[in-house]
Amino acid sequence: MRFDNHIVLALDDLAGDGAVEVARQLAHGLDAIKVGYPLVLTEGLAVVDRLSRVAPVICDFKVADIPAVSAMIVQRAVRAGASGVIVHGFVGHDSVAEAVAAAEGMDGFAVTEMSHPGALDYLQDRSEEMAAMAREAGAAGIIAPATRPERVSALRGIVGTDMVILSPGVGTQGGSAGTTIRAGANAVIVGRSLYRSPDPPAALQALLDDMMA
Amino acid sequence: MRFDNHIVLALDDLAGDGAVEVARQLAHGLDAIKVGYPLVLTEGLAVVDRLSRVAPVICDFKVADIPAVSAMIVQRAVRAGASGVIVHGFVGHDSVAEAVAAAEGMDGFAVTEMSHPGALDYLQDRSEEMAAMAREAGAAGIIAPATRPERVSALRGIVGTDMVILSPGVGTQGGSAGTTIRAGANAVIVGRSLYRSPDPPAALQALLDDMMA
Repeated sequence: MRFDNHIVLALDDLAGDGAVEVARQLAHGLDAIKVGYPLVLTEGLAVVDRLSRVAPVICDFKVADIPAVSAMIVQRAVRAGASGVIVHGFVGHDSVAEAVAAAEGMDGFAVTEMSHPGALDYLQDRSEEMAAMAREAGAAGIIAPATRPERVSALRGIVGTDMVILSPGVGTQGGSAGTTIRAGANAVIVGRSLYRSPDPPAALQALLDDMMA
Repeated sequence: MRFDNHIVLALDDLAGDGAVEVARQLAHGLDAIKVGYPLVLTEGLAVVDRLSRVAPVICDFKVADIPAVSAMIVQRAVRAGASGVIVHGFVGHDSVAEAVAAAEGMDGFAVTEMSHPGALDYLQDRSEEMAAMAREAGAAGIIAPATRPERVSALRGIVGTDMVILSPGVGTQGGSAGTTIRAGANAVIVGRSLYRSPDPPAALQALLDDMMA
């Protein structure tokens, strides 16, 4: 996957038709569309195929199971048309490696850090170790929060320049697209502030302008 | 949920009709049926409703997202007919609490420990803290591996007698049903060694006998 526009559209709590419509409106400025379980459980995996006709789809399934089951989940996402799948790093090297291998040439991204308060309980202390492990496991990239750009920079130092960093948390959660990209992310993941905007294309353009500033 | 038979049937990689058929064959000796994403992604959430007519269903979605998204996932499982949902403890107190609250009176179970080798990387050291946190968050129970019965006993000491412990890892992975129940689990979670048996009812009876020994 390429991230030339530096923007991934997250579609979290829309219904299928609404999701496809907003994706089409914004397709010219997107690198990918991220879909999670709320949408997929409502619409079925067929929504991945529908959206993949608009832009490459990353299934944000935060896969976190034993290796054999993680692989089964990733395979189902890829066969449904996903170009990427997000897995959790904390389940360990074998689960991440088997999930990445099951992506069959598509991209596996590992969560190494999250943006909510509870992420400080058990995850935060281990994020740099998990980033190094994800690299060893063959992940195409990692997920690191735009709400903490200094963490994006620190993790860039660990994963090097050939891995992708995708950063959620821009917009409603308070992160800035421009700051996050300048801190080292390849793309920001933006959801509600785009699809709940009264004028989504204008909101997208404002993000693109922020990154050019 | 009650666990009087001490057995939860896991249906991991069956198709929908096969899953319903094996569940019906074994219903007399089951407390619940655990379904995960491999089955739900293939069949859709409707399979939860179908299976819930045979026995109470626990959705093993290992939910591990930010609180708002974790809640959305749990709500979809419960509305589909699930009596319980499995979430990950490692995402922290707020995600677990919000997921448990979203279960709307159904049972939330928290994973505090896993059985694969990679679980030693980041999870194992924090499992007792996570068990205590799950208790505070209002979880109905925790998941702890039958492959390590001494860990089941240790976690029982933390969660007390009013929380449920469900233990996967019996059968194909090497754990013993009798040993696990005597170590303090309320039920063992058994999959392949039941549904791949040439005679599933006989395999179930052997498990029940092992627990009576």
